[in-house]
Amino acid sequence: MFDEPIERLIEYFRQLPGVGKKTAQRYAFFVIENSKEKAENFAKAIVEVKEKVKLCAVCGNYSTTEICPICSARNRQIVCVVQEPKDIVSMEKVKSYNGVYHVLFGTISPLENRGPNDIKIKELLARVEKDGVKEVIMATNPDVEGDATAMYISRLLKPLGVKVTRLAQGIAMGSDIEFTDEVTLERALEQRKEI
Amino acid sequence: MFDEPIERLIEYFRQLPGVGKKTAQRYAFFVIENSKEKAENFAKAIVEVKEKVKLCAVCGNYSTTEICPICSARNRQIVCVVQEPKDIVSMEKVKSYNGVYHVLFGTISPLENRGPNDIKIKELLARVEKDGVKEVIMATNPDVEGDATAMYISRLLKPLGVKVTRLAQGIAMGSDIEFTDEVTLERALEQRKEI
Repeated sequence: MFDEPIERLIEYFRQLPGVGKKTAQRYAFFVIENSKEKAENFAKAIVEVKEKVKLCAVCGNYSTTEICPICSARNRQIVCVVQEPKDIVSMEKVKSYNGVYHVLFGTISPLENRGPNDIKIKELLARVEKDGVKEVIMATNPDVEGDATAMYISRLLKPLGVKVTRLAQGIAMGSDIEFTDEVTLERALEQRKEI
Repeated sequence: MFDEPIERLIEYFRQLPGVGKKTAQRYAFFVIENSKEKAENFAKAIVEVKEKVKLCAVCGNYSTTEICPICSARNRQIVCVVQEPKDIVSMEKVKSYNGVYHVLFGTISPLENRGPNDIKIKELLARVEKDGVKEVIMATNPDVEGDATAMYISRLLKPLGVKVTRLAQGIAMGSDIEFTDEVTLERALEQRKEI
């Protein structure tokens, strides 16, 4: 359909998450219609992000410095454990949290052949000893794998005398009971609180 | 929120059409999570498309050659006039069309201060004379500006003895009368055909 350089650019845009053929085409046309300078800067930004962004040596979050700003500035005795760096973005919107993070880079998943050694559990245990961690908050996703991973890690941590907590599960703020799925409702019922 | 190279890349992704903050962030994280090689190739594809893709000297479509494959191979006596190169992509899906195209790069729009000299009308007139064009099909969008532009061009072309046609307007295939807007219905009624 298109000349080769256009097809190739469309192909790269299509690899982005959630991008179909039509959207990729719109993106490619946008690049073509814009200035050469803008395209060059865009390309530079892509290369630069790969060159400069590493993983924080402490928590595994994306960082341009060896130790990320969060780990450098905050109380390391409270650690929130997440599956992916992008989860930190969401957690950071909760202004009241001022502990640090630990990225597992996945969950334990027998179905996908990922065992405890394939995610960053060893590193978490090492931190707990080294930094004298007092509380570990498990913020893995509320699904089968996330729950199982949280449970597995909690069993390893408890003998070390660390308090292990899990984000509360229940109905989301602003949602409708009518449209809430039964698993969530069941969990909310089980964990009901006296008011 | 993020380190500077990440923020910058998010900013570039946000400039793509229809991309908000959250989507741009997903795209940037995708680049970070992928291999360096892939990022470099992606960046190269962006720069290359600007270097290699020019406008066809005949029709104005995007092309890596001076004259695009469509203009090189087809009957130049039937010309379909479109607003933008991307409209050619849609027209080309109609397999029965085997004429060539002419891209106006916009419409006449007094509101946006675009007159007849700001779009490629002169170039169209020159082609009509040079190639002995027999029919010009106006495929500008079916809105006020597209209609006005089609009408303007048709008045210039008719004295030259060229047949000027306009894509039929009416209710779209597969649509519901119930949900069709009144302007479209009015047009469809005016242009009703005996069956």
